[in-house]
Amino acid sequence: MSATLDAAYASLCGHARETAKLASIAGLLEWDERTKMPPAGGEYRAEQIAYLAGEIHKRQTAPQLGEWLAQLADSSLAADRHSEIGTVIRQLRRQYDKKTRLPQKLVEELSRTAVLGQQMWSEARKADDFSRFQPILEKTLDLKRQEAAALGYEETPYDALLDDYEPEARTSEVRNTLAALRDALTPLVEQIVGSGRRPDGAILKREFPIAAQEAFGQQAAAAIGFDFNAGRLDVTDHPFCGSAGPRDIRLTTRYNQHDFGDAFFSILHEAGHGLYEQGLPTEHFGLPTGETVSLGIHESQSRMWENQVGRSWVFWEFMFPKARQKFLSLGDVPLESFYAAINEVQPSLIRVDADEVTYNLHILIRFELELAMIEDQLQAADLPAAWREKYQHYLSITPPNDADGALQDVHWSAGLFGYFPTYSLGNLYAGQFFEKANADLGDLAGQFRRGEFQPLLDWLRQNIHHHGQRWSAAELAMNITGKPLSHTPWFSQIQHKYSELYGL
Amino acid sequence: MSATLDAAYASLCGHARETAKLASIAGLLEWDERTKMPPAGGEYRAEQIAYLAGEIHKRQTAPQLGEWLAQLADSSLAADRHSEIGTVIRQLRRQYDKKTRLPQKLVEELSRTAVLGQQMWSEARKADDFSRFQPILEKTLDLKRQEAAALGYEETPYDALLDDYEPEARTSEVRNTLAALRDALTPLVEQIVGSGRRPDGAILKREFPIAAQEAFGQQAAAAIGFDFNAGRLDVTDHPFCGSAGPRDIRLTTRYNQHDFGDAFFSILHEAGHGLYEQGLPTEHFGLPTGETVSLGIHESQSRMWENQVGRSWVFWEFMFPKARQKFLSLGDVPLESFYAAINEVQPSLIRVDADEVTYNLHILIRFELELAMIEDQLQAADLPAAWREKYQHYLSITPPNDADGALQDVHWSAGLFGYFPTYSLGNLYAGQFFEKANADLGDLAGQFRRGEFQPLLDWLRQNIHHHGQRWSAAELAMNITGKPLSHTPWFSQIQHKYSELYGL
Repeated sequence: MSATLDAAYASLCGHARETAKLASIAGLLEWDERTKMPPAGGEYRAEQIAYLAGEIHKRQTAPQLGEWLAQLADSSLAADRHSEIGTVIRQLRRQYDKKTRLPQKLVEELSRTAVLGQQMWSEARKADDFSRFQPILEKTLDLKRQEAAALGYEETPYDALLDDYEPEARTSEVRNTLAALRDALTPLVEQIVGSGRRPDGAILKREFPIAAQEAFGQQAAAAIGFDFNAGRLDVTDHPFCGSAGPRDIRLTTRYNQHDFGDAFFSILHEAGHGLYEQGLPTEHFGLPTGETVSLGIHESQSRMWENQVGRSWVFWEFMFPKARQKFLSLGDVPLESFYAAINEVQPSLIRVDADEVTYNLHILIRFELELAMIEDQLQAADLPAAWREKYQHYLSITPPNDADGALQDVHWSAGLFGYFPTYSLGNLYAGQFFEKANADLGDLAGQFRRGEFQPLLDWLRQNIHHHGQRWSAAELAMNITGKPLSHTPWFSQIQHKYSELYGL
Repeated sequence: MSATLDAAYASLCGHARETAKLASIAGLLEWDERTKMPPAGGEYRAEQIAYLAGEIHKRQTAPQLGEWLAQLADSSLAADRHSEIGTVIRQLRRQYDKKTRLPQKLVEELSRTAVLGQQMWSEARKADDFSRFQPILEKTLDLKRQEAAALGYEETPYDALLDDYEPEARTSEVRNTLAALRDALTPLVEQIVGSGRRPDGAILKREFPIAAQEAFGQQAAAAIGFDFNAGRLDVTDHPFCGSAGPRDIRLTTRYNQHDFGDAFFSILHEAGHGLYEQGLPTEHFGLPTGETVSLGIHESQSRMWENQVGRSWVFWEFMFPKARQKFLSLGDVPLESFYAAINEVQPSLIRVDADEVTYNLHILIRFELELAMIEDQLQAADLPAAWREKYQHYLSITPPNDADGALQDVHWSAGLFGYFPTYSLGNLYAGQFFEKANADLGDLAGQFRRGEFQPLLDWLRQNIHHHGQRWSAAELAMNITGKPLSHTPWFSQIQHKYSELYGL
């Protein structure tokens, strides 16, 4: 009996590792498409990626896999759900159940609609005409509700969708956490705006030669521990962190000669994602024990390196002299002015350009709107007006058009409902983990000031990266900090930092 | 009946096109490995590529494929072997028969030995110690003879191996052609050496900034018609032309700041390969009607653009003013001296650095040696001495060590027997095609002088590229020029050019 179980487990792992080979190959193709591929290569590239996606889907829903899992799931091997073997069985079972619950026809319809949706969104946005997007949005909502019904849920269909990005999270908990965040944040934003202080943002819009930006970005990514022996940095349109294998992690960014911050902070952000990927146990690559937990936890890593580290005073005590060596245009800039400029808070229309403080309000708006749409309490036709109302309410500004309003982001057109809140969850996890790391490691500020980032990285590796998917995001927070996720650690860091900056 | 045949043919084509998706994906992985991949990615990349190779092999030997081919091969559809459908059936049948004739065990042993062989070759070469390579060379020879026996042959086991690179070519014909070439070439080389003339090669070893070399190489590749909308140029260690899909062709080169010719002529050479790939009919991608004929024909394209075009006086009448704009170090160089320098003939030890004239003697030596080894007339132990003897005989120089002698090239260590002669066949095909193109198109020289390369490219597309594998290399030569392949067109071009250059 035990020999049979062992054999089934070995087959299961072998199967998952082979699927990971295909997935990592697809990862390289996607990275290449967005960084190197010549324009005319796009049509065939889509066929190559669709072929791989089909093969991966076949493997992930293979009846053989179901048989192994049926043998293993209730066996002694799976008894300890957080053991190495228990984690592998539990998570592969979870994935298999989700994948096989969706009818093939619905999967294809979702996929087709996502491709079409993005095209129609792109056209509608260019023409600033929401009515051209509305029909496909309605269809997408209908399909996503069907998807949720097929997957099953207890409280709200949004639960089933959220689970794709933040496994085991519940909408009700997310709603409560983000509502508490909103209630704390809106008065702080008002105070900052009301302070009348405005840093000199023009400092960051001077001449910053691209080659120097690239070299400086690489220097910073290497300083925080990104291993360029097992990774790269390239140019793309929309920065991302890609993976082509366990020791092949690819950061991307874009450069603007007249903007220091855009590339620099996106490099730190993507390097944060990359450090998580590089910190996963290589020998478990392709198994749940070697994979990242959730988008929220992934984002907690990128945000922590970008914000808690990269926008801190002490980080720049260390890096600013190096920046001055690289950029002539910073020669006359005092560190105080630079620090104020990279931390400027300014309510604005565009999420991806938002500052550290107001960013979460952009997310809240999207979360509240998509939740209402999925729960059929907001109709697609009413989205533009609802969007404007929320921006006025939370940020005291109203988009002058739908292109910068309800048509701003690609997500909904691609069927990504349940994705947005993970950005804010990431911020909050980052705040909570950082508070604990600071308590555990003593003087983090002093370490950063001396350019010592290894202690923090080691702490993250030991507490988060090394575990793969042994624990859910919520369990990780509880294990590490002894508390469930809440907005308070992040908010108190923000309140402290910005009270000082804006003299509140 | 006909409906059944049509269905079998459609299945056959669909199957081949899917296999091509995997092969083109492997093409991207290999390109990336040699141009972009971070060092630590290598181990997993080998697993990814081995996995794809295994899947491709499974598909190429699938019993289903054998059934379709059995139905089709003797049917009316295949009756005209050079029609579109006839070509697809004939060539896929040919490939299937070859692949299925090799026992799986032998395939695996060949593959393992090739990996090991390259490692041992690399160590032996570094240590300049042939004895460390000899045992694995003996094993490789034994396996290659087994391979030839399994594949079958009429005259010599070398026929079976040659067929992998130059399908349908016969060793006896290649031997005769190359022997005639050798007999014409050796006295010419003696005359050139005896002329006492030496161009000023130092001109090409001045300062050539790498960014300018890259820009100039791209300019030249674009000028001869390489489409950068469907291709790229990147840096690697050993230049090659890779393909990631029908409209995604990737040239590579390496730059040396103090060498103009190394990068420039390798770019033209690889662009020649790339023009062939870009000229194949896109809609046949993955089918034999959309694939290249042989290594010899492939090399005829790269050599023609590199040599007949790129080392001609008239090409540089057009390009030299542009080169002078890019490179300050050419400011005082007359075109005459530049032209003489890029066409310097000098018997030397290293094949890859050899000039246009002596290059074929390097190939002849390797061809004669590997033929003798496969036919068991030369023992591995006697290879170093035989190598020295031949270099003395044909080029009047003797390698001072085996590292630059019998250990010079990677080919044999990787099991590539039958590959070398295709380099010289390529030169001869280039000469024969170029002579005919010149007759068909009138004043090619005048066209080149004005920077007009499109007529030659169109001629190559129409006569060679568009046909895919409808005709074998030998048939192409006969169809296009009305004559079988011979050394005389190439040799008379060379004799004419170098008599002028060296005042013979």
